Amino acid sequence: MTKHVYTFGAGSAEGKADMKNLLGGKGANLAEMNLIGVPVPAGFTITTEVCTAYNKLGQDAVIEMLKAEVEKAVTDTEVAMNAKFGTKGEAFPLMLSVRSGARVSMPGMMNTVLNLGMNDDAVKILAEKSGNEQFAYDSYRRFIQMYGNVVMGVEAEEGEYDPFEEVMDRIKEENGYKIDAEITAENLKAIVEEFKAIVKDKAGREFPTNPWDQLWGSVCAVFDSWNTPRAILYRQKEQISEEWGTAVNVQAMVYGNMGDNSGTGVCFSRDAATGEDQFNGEYLINAQGEDVVAGVRTPQEITLIGSRRWAERNGTSEDNRKAKFPSLEEAMPKVYKELDEIQQKLEDHYKDMQDMEFTIQDGKLWMLQTRNGKRTGAAMVKMAVDMLDEGMIDEKTALMRQEPNKLDELLHPVFDLAAIAKATVLSKGLPASPGAATGVCAFTAARAVELAEAGNKVILVRRETSPEDLAGMYAAEGILTERGGMTSHAAVVARGMGKCCVSSAAGITVSMTSLKIAGKEYGEGDFISLNGTTGEVYEGKVDTITATLDGDFGKVMQWAENNTRMYVRTNADSPADAETAREFGAKGIGLCRTEHMFFEGDRIWKMREMILAEDTAGRKEALKKLLPIQREDFYGILKAMDGFGVTIRLLDPPLHEFTPNDLDSQKEMAEKLGVPLAEVTEKVEALHEFNPMLGHRGCRLGNTYPEITETQARAIIEATCDLKKEGFDPKPEIMVPLIGTVQEFKLQEEIIRSVAADVMAEKGIEVDYMVGTMIEIPRAALTANEVAKHAEFFSFGTNDLTQMTFGYSRDDAAKFLPIYIEKGILKQDPFLALDQVGVGELVKFAVDRGRSSRPDIKLGICGEHGGEPSSVEFCHRTGLDYVSCSPFRVPIARVAAAQANIR
Amino acid sequence: MTKHVYTFGAGSAEGKADMKNLLGGKGANLAEMNLIGVPVPAGFTITTEVCTAYNKLGQDAVIEMLKAEVEKAVTDTEVAMNAKFGTKGEAFPLMLSVRSGARVSMPGMMNTVLNLGMNDDAVKILAEKSGNEQFAYDSYRRFIQMYGNVVMGVEAEEGEYDPFEEVMDRIKEENGYKIDAEITAENLKAIVEEFKAIVKDKAGREFPTNPWDQLWGSVCAVFDSWNTPRAILYRQKEQISEEWGTAVNVQAMVYGNMGDNSGTGVCFSRDAATGEDQFNGEYLINAQGEDVVAGVRTPQEITLIGSRRWAERNGTSEDNRKAKFPSLEEAMPKVYKELDEIQQKLEDHYKDMQDMEFTIQDGKLWMLQTRNGKRTGAAMVKMAVDMLDEGMIDEKTALMRQEPNKLDELLHPVFDLAAIAKATVLSKGLPASPGAATGVCAFTAARAVELAEAGNKVILVRRETSPEDLAGMYAAEGILTERGGMTSHAAVVARGMGKCCVSSAAGITVSMTSLKIAGKEYGEGDFISLNGTTGEVYEGKVDTITATLDGDFGKVMQWAENNTRMYVRTNADSPADAETAREFGAKGIGLCRTEHMFFEGDRIWKMREMILAEDTAGRKEALKKLLPIQREDFYGILKAMDGFGVTIRLLDPPLHEFTPNDLDSQKEMAEKLGVPLAEVTEKVEALHEFNPMLGHRGCRLGNTYPEITETQARAIIEATCDLKKEGFDPKPEIMVPLIGTVQEFKLQEEIIRSVAADVMAEKGIEVDYMVGTMIEIPRAALTANEVAKHAEFFSFGTNDLTQMTFGYSRDDAAKFLPIYIEKGILKQDPFLALDQVGVGELVKFAVDRGRSSRPDIKLGICGEHGGEPSSVEFCHRTGLDYVSCSPFRVPIARVAAAQANIR
Repeated sequence: MTKHVYTFGAGSAEGKADMKNLLGGKGANLAEMNLIGVPVPAGFTITTEVCTAYNKLGQDAVIEMLKAEVEKAVTDTEVAMNAKFGTKGEAFPLMLSVRSGARVSMPGMMNTVLNLGMNDDAVKILAEKSGNEQFAYDSYRRFIQMYGNVVMGVEAEEGEYDPFEEVMDRIKEENGYKIDAEITAENLKAIVEEFKAIVKDKAGREFPTNPWDQLWGSVCAVFDSWNTPRAILYRQKEQISEEWGTAVNVQAMVYGNMGDNSGTGVCFSRDAATGEDQFNGEYLINAQGEDVVAGVRTPQEITLIGSRRWAERNGTSEDNRKAKFPSLEEAMPKVYKELDEIQQKLEDHYKDMQDMEFTIQDGKLWMLQTRNGKRTGAAMVKMAVDMLDEGMIDEKTALMRQEPNKLDELLHPVFDLAAIAKATVLSKGLPASPGAATGVCAFTAARAVELAEAGNKVILVRRETSPEDLAGMYAAEGILTERGGMTSHAAVVARGMGKCCVSSAAGITVSMTSLKIAGKEYGEGDFISLNGTTGEVYEGKVDTITATLDGDFGKVMQWAENNTRMYVRTNADSPADAETAREFGAKGIGLCRTEHMFFEGDRIWKMREMILAEDTAGRKEALKKLLPIQREDFYGILKAMDGFGVTIRLLDPPLHEFTPNDLDSQKEMAEKLGVPLAEVTEKVEALHEFNPMLGHRGCRLGNTYPEITETQARAIIEATCDLKKEGFDPKPEIMVPLIGTVQEFKLQEEIIRSVAADVMAEKGIEVDYMVGTMIEIPRAALTANEVAKHAEFFSFGTNDLTQMTFGYSRDDAAKFLPIYIEKGILKQDPFLALDQVGVGELVKFAVDRGRSSRPDIKLGICGEHGGEPSSVEFCHRTGLDYVSCSPFRVPIARVAAAQANIR
Repeated sequence: MTKHVYTFGAGSAEGKADMKNLLGGKGANLAEMNLIGVPVPAGFTITTEVCTAYNKLGQDAVIEMLKAEVEKAVTDTEVAMNAKFGTKGEAFPLMLSVRSGARVSMPGMMNTVLNLGMNDDAVKILAEKSGNEQFAYDSYRRFIQMYGNVVMGVEAEEGEYDPFEEVMDRIKEENGYKIDAEITAENLKAIVEEFKAIVKDKAGREFPTNPWDQLWGSVCAVFDSWNTPRAILYRQKEQISEEWGTAVNVQAMVYGNMGDNSGTGVCFSRDAATGEDQFNGEYLINAQGEDVVAGVRTPQEITLIGSRRWAERNGTSEDNRKAKFPSLEEAMPKVYKELDEIQQKLEDHYKDMQDMEFTIQDGKLWMLQTRNGKRTGAAMVKMAVDMLDEGMIDEKTALMRQEPNKLDELLHPVFDLAAIAKATVLSKGLPASPGAATGVCAFTAARAVELAEAGNKVILVRRETSPEDLAGMYAAEGILTERGGMTSHAAVVARGMGKCCVSSAAGITVSMTSLKIAGKEYGEGDFISLNGTTGEVYEGKVDTITATLDGDFGKVMQWAENNTRMYVRTNADSPADAETAREFGAKGIGLCRTEHMFFEGDRIWKMREMILAEDTAGRKEALKKLLPIQREDFYGILKAMDGFGVTIRLLDPPLHEFTPNDLDSQKEMAEKLGVPLAEVTEKVEALHEFNPMLGHRGCRLGNTYPEITETQARAIIEATCDLKKEGFDPKPEIMVPLIGTVQEFKLQEEIIRSVAADVMAEKGIEVDYMVGTMIEIPRAALTANEVAKHAEFFSFGTNDLTQMTFGYSRDDAAKFLPIYIEKGILKQDPFLALDQVGVGELVKFAVDRGRSSRPDIKLGICGEHGGEPSSVEFCHRTGLDYVSCSPFRVPIARVAAAQANIR
């Protein structure tokens, strides 16, 4: 006969940790804790298989099936807890909790019933045994409310308040109480009667007083909750199978509010903030778990050392501390000793920092829960390094413990905790680039530069940024924009610079002179602060703490190095960025955008001269002036990445990005270039596009104006020849952007190879270089077998590939993407995490087809996804050679790549 | 031993028609004509295999290989023609032509040498035998010029004139001649000497006087021309294999300019303009083929009946006609009789109308060429019907003879031939919608309506059109725009209306009051004329002839009906369009765009009210006013297509398409809707998008504003219920546009089905309807298996699918598409003919995946490609159920679909 019920308690259990599929996560863990000798309130788990049977056979059949096993399990629980279920003579009443517990956690999705077993008899015994009538009746009224709601379906009708809460409010009003704790035992007795009447009225039947009826009702309610619409929706979103079902955990209740010999608390086996190997936590005497959370009373430290540190921080004298806020170590030394041994045992057992909940009932310690504790990025690194040193875990485990995104916390400034606690949040936007920044507002790039030069820390505040704002962005500590998504210009560039950025901040209005936000107006020179990791915008100046990397971080990077197959490159447009990334372990540049170079200083004027040229000859003339500048840029970058490949993308953006939009700037342009204004305005108008994203850009420029490609190819190969002559080892990989047909690539490749041959002949030296292409147009992916016959490498430009595959403009999608995510149409923003189902399908397709034509083709990704862990894992699985991301994402990508390899 | 040379002449031949791969098209045809007893100048064909050998082995080896066979073939030719190659005694000199001839025609791509065999001796004999010294020396100088250029590589150097033409010009100038014919024999003798000197100077060797050297030089030149860059490019574009090679045809020259017993002409076995079964053609006595083309002399009619008709048209008296312009039938009755018999024999043999060239040399008729003749659309239809009636061909052959696009000529007005011959072309644009139109210029939609109401024929001239111009487009005869491609608003709407449209006309500038073109300015009321089939714009009024369909057209449609698997639907937004299309044989509507309905009359104001609404309640209020209007529209369209499926697409365009852009119209909007102007301008600004094509539109509207979908679904189902109650058989297919994820579809489907259930309950009647989706986003195609689990039909929106797959904005692509086509990067505009390699791959993918989830899923296409023959064939092969196109393309699509099925 199949076993449906697994008991646990008093140091033994029928289940164990590896039975999660059958017992659910919680059930397996409760069994495991018993097995290793941790005191856990006894109880039993009804298996997930029963849930499946319940959905097929229905309630009655399942109760029949379970009856004997459950009755036996309740008896075992009674024995273990020395209590009696239902009122049996004078024994202490056994109260039960009934909770769901699926294979994976589905927080808040399913039903829970507490204090089960309560009735008019039991409440009296509990009041007597606990010596606390108010506690007993409050437990009773809570039980009716919860059971009435969860099992009997009593809830607020449309347009009305919750009927139970209405009674509570009325009683408080009538008696002038402010908080629930003031409600007396007498009040509660009356409330219990009213609650029973409400249940009868709304549910049409009496509230069940028989504990067994209560138990079966609760068990079935948990099974029913597996199929509520919100649970189904949650499973769809999280891809949890319908078939898995939930287990039901029935467990004895214990109470920390049964007098001064009782208490409750939470504790951690190591310091979750710093990672220090120091047991710590908080507790309250004579309290329930929710009291610790509610914050009405100040919780006390568990350890003496923690308590003393707390007193020091709060300026409390040792005497006062000892009298009013003694540590558990002092107040209940025996219990403390047991707890300390248990925490060590649990950490040793689970081989990770534990976050535990406990209750002391009448001097007896019960552990309610243990789980791996959450931690800061710094703690995550330190704990893993320490545990590896201690021999608790091996290198692979230590590496797998790193949440890649959390490494960000180590790389960027963060707010001072004390300062941020007092700060006022003005708005919340998108966390476009991580870190914290504080400074004075500047509303133009030029003013940002001036204010910074005058010694101010500056926040650049713009409606949106464009390449013309680059100097201002460099000068600023952080960037705030009214518009734009996670892949807007501001966001992408800020991430590249490692600067904090908040974009699309809610309800803000930015002009050229002020920022209106939350009903206030801030002008130039007013302080604001940004948290680019959360998207929060704060009023005034909030102190920040600069990031510092210690040796532990280096160890983590070494683990990644030891365990990876795929390597990591960086997206960098300047020698400085290249150097930063190289320090973080980047092995080459996956994307060097040549257009960014054109905005610096006077260069834009030469570019504009080229754009205004009327014919090929005119363009060639202007390009001649750009050639030495480009050569110098490439020289610097190739030198900074000496020995590693540098993928240089030929000119990509539409030409109108280089021309000014406002009349004043157009006048300036006309004056500077010595042409009539009309010529400038006509050119600007001629360059206008309805959908620039799908317009005249990428290799469409190189194929209509081959002289641009010629000039860029010449600059690259000249720089390469010069470096090789000087003894360096430059490895340029010339990338043709935005191809959709193999012909587009072939024509560009011909130009590049022909120019390269010329340059090498002129310079009298042979150099190696590759010519490849970006795969960012769906058609290029679909015809990758043809493209790969000519291209030596593919770099997946997943930003644009996502735009075209979804048909989303990343500049406009903010209008519907948040609603799509809210409605569950999308699980996440596809510009943040690569859409593996759709866009990923095209990537896989292109990888397969590309390799079919050229087995040794070099494959990488250079979209923003290259620094996002789930996308990095996808790239590993798909067999790419490398990912490329902004310099500050390199460590994250390295860890993600190594983890993918271990998985 | 492999045979390399195939002779023909004097009624026998070694090759035949089905040896095209070996002998090339021309060679096989020359052989075939001999075999059926047509007099063809004798000669021989060197096979295509020799070309391949030539490329591998080189010149010397191939000449060695061919030598014996060619010498024998020349001897055979001498015998057949009673002439001698080289000067052998007093015999008539045999002159030869050497021409290329590949498997498929590559017009103008490869080299030709005429009058080969000429030298100082031969020219004298020819002068004597022909009695025409001028002719003989002119032939000689032509030969030196052609051979010098083609074989010896003498050509103009950069920046200089052609050296031969320079001599000719100098001689004419010195002697005051105006045309070449005035140059005397004496002049020509001197010219020949000068030409020889030029060759020696430029080529560095003497002009070869030995006819055999000339022959081998010419044969090798033809083989060499297979690999010229332009021939290679042409083959790439036309997908002709490099391996096929070209044959070389060496054939005796015959001369029509050897006196009054000689002549030359072209003739047709039926009337190429009308299709009438009447032999016809033109000839000239004592002339070469090029004289007929040059137009210096007036060619005469071949038949007496033709000659009399000509005289009547030109007001020439019978006496004058007979004296000066006698028909060949009168002038050379014996030759005429032979020619008439031959034309009949050739038509019977090739079973199609023949276009023939002939030469009469000294009373002897020689046929130089025969091929299937080009014809007008009307003639194409009539000939096929007649030949089927005559039993010459069967129904399938008759159907395959229809060039689908040519049927257009029967459906639209065309210019009067006499009128157009005299008209001045002002510009050429894209042939955006076929037909001819003449009328006065109107520069706004409103003026177009007024002028039309006043009885004028109007041409609407706009920079570009928008939905606000619809009324003006309806009122106009034709539309001319400065901007926009083949799928611009103007083009798409005009094709739907069956109106002529020319878009992106070169070098024109349109304002609100005038049209500047070719240096002239035209104001309101000035006449212009448009040919939407060619893209030409004419000055002034050019008379048109209205299209009329006769019974023959109906027969062609019936053949299509008998032979098709795939059926044809129409894209129609109004009952009138639906009726037109139904007359053309459309079986349902594949795309009914609901947004077009919102621009008519006062409706736009209700739409704008909806857009301005601040919340869901406000939008619902405004939508309530649109509901009855929409219901009425759907009622009309479903009724017009009673019994056939009608695919209704839910609202698709971004909302900003419904709001005005200029300040005046925004003021009007504010006034009309009673809101402050600021509210309107703010809304317009908020709706602005950087890339509207990839923005907030399609089901993204329905999913963010579900009330829009609710209203449209209600209108459709209410109309359906009403019609069913009246005894009609409405079949709505509700189409959700622009989905990229199955969730987007599911949420819309839920709304539609829920509303439908409500309406059916209210109306007390059950109706059938389908819910499906448009596949126009690459991601939808990639995940079609998921989508098909919920969608009952797919309609491929290949316009947008092409935009996203290529990353081309059809509004902007005009900036580079023409250059791409010119450079051979693209073979054709992918918005005109479906890109089968890339976009087609996605379509096939979606068809396979869709059917895997839902085997009976209904599949169609509703992009502009649905009316383009090669795309229709693709759809047939891919297994779609139907194609849908604008009403006037329905006949074309039906023929193309049937032809695809036969193929």
